[in-house]
Amino acid sequence: MQERIWTAALVVIGDEILSGRTQDRNVAQLASWLNVQGIRLAEVRVVPDVQAAIVEAVTTLRLRNDYCFTTGGIGPTHDDITVDAIAAALGVPVEIHPDARAMLEGYYASRGGLTEARLRMARAPQGAQLIPNRMSGAPGLQVGNLFILAGVPHIAAGMLDALTGTLEGGRPVLSRTIGCWVAESEIADLLADTERAYQGVSIGSYPFFREGRVGANFVVRATDPARLETCAAALSDGLAARGFEPVADGI
Amino acid sequence: MQERIWTAALVVIGDEILSGRTQDRNVAQLASWLNVQGIRLAEVRVVPDVQAAIVEAVTTLRLRNDYCFTTGGIGPTHDDITVDAIAAALGVPVEIHPDARAMLEGYYASRGGLTEARLRMARAPQGAQLIPNRMSGAPGLQVGNLFILAGVPHIAAGMLDALTGTLEGGRPVLSRTIGCWVAESEIADLLADTERAYQGVSIGSYPFFREGRVGANFVVRATDPARLETCAAALSDGLAARGFEPVADGI
Repeated sequence: MQERIWTAALVVIGDEILSGRTQDRNVAQLASWLNVQGIRLAEVRVVPDVQAAIVEAVTTLRLRNDYCFTTGGIGPTHDDITVDAIAAALGVPVEIHPDARAMLEGYYASRGGLTEARLRMARAPQGAQLIPNRMSGAPGLQVGNLFILAGVPHIAAGMLDALTGTLEGGRPVLSRTIGCWVAESEIADLLADTERAYQGVSIGSYPFFREGRVGANFVVRATDPARLETCAAALSDGLAARGFEPVADGI
Repeated sequence: MQERIWTAALVVIGDEILSGRTQDRNVAQLASWLNVQGIRLAEVRVVPDVQAAIVEAVTTLRLRNDYCFTTGGIGPTHDDITVDAIAAALGVPVEIHPDARAMLEGYYASRGGLTEARLRMARAPQGAQLIPNRMSGAPGLQVGNLFILAGVPHIAAGMLDALTGTLEGGRPVLSRTIGCWVAESEIADLLADTERAYQGVSIGSYPFFREGRVGANFVVRATDPARLETCAAALSDGLAARGFEPVADGI
């Protein structure tokens, strides 16, 4: 019985990430949130604030994943072109969403009123639904399997919070991390043999250097809890049998 | 006279980034380094440790950029498949690089010797040159316009250091950041008009919320220093003329 795997992709829209000015936080944040929903982040693209680049990425990724998220470019300024790009990718017009307009009118009632620039944040590809944003006036948008989120990480987090439990997924990917004082090159055969012996389990190897010593974290991942524990125990036993010392604090 | 723009792409190879376990640092690090070389980071893809995904990304990105970098997947374990994937993308065989073998023999002479697993790190696509790595035994690789770097950020940094000044680029992109206590939606028209008035200059708008107040950083970017300063001054003057207060510490 083949387990159905649900996948998502992320398109990070932002010159500020590509220029090195801003450290992206949305990849890790979305990945962790998706894991809990039983959905795997399968691929990410970071593209500039250029319509053709956004259209290309969104068009490719939404068709080959169950879900496609975007972050960035939904503010009120001239460099916020995500809504137009996604409407172009879908071949639908951009409209003022009446509920978004009402939300912005409420939010800006005590903040100088809804100007033309602020009204930009009520624009949506035709057919879109709003994703609530408790942090500021502008909502996120969902259209088909596309989820358009803010670029500011804590605002994106609020939008994900609003989506929690609403997306169909499979079993979450569980993981166990085994930290060990060993150079990964010394036990490469053990890792490969163990992974091969447990179908549906993957083992990643991530070396580190601290306290003047070489070590590695081995991350065992699977959706089946029993299989995960059995494989992790086998790997721990294998490391101990060769005389390698576990890292005291686990990782 | 159209200025020649040099571009690079990055393929981040790593299940650990897509699982949310590890926060990527290589995008920002590479972007900053490229800026100094006069090369723009034009696009980034994060792909899993799956050969077909790596081949697709590398094949697309190396053909439409002057340079294409990869990070991750060059260690000694079973999940390190970057060299094989890139060789497949280029249609060349994988060989043991004699200089890499010699380097690893030297490095492991006092560390238990060169085992079969460690020798994996001397594998290279046919025709590759080594990129020195002062931090550990395994070198990076260059083949054509592809640069294969380590995933561990400080090791990747050492490899970039070795490449500094060796890649042809254009004029670096310069930037000025203007911090202002203003909601970006209040001056969206000023930003758009100012950008339009200065060809070759781009203005990005990045809102923040701190000390209980709303503000934004406006990042002005250009390769021409005089044009950059003139445009930044015009924007500052425009903000002051409307009565908005600059952020005291600049940003």
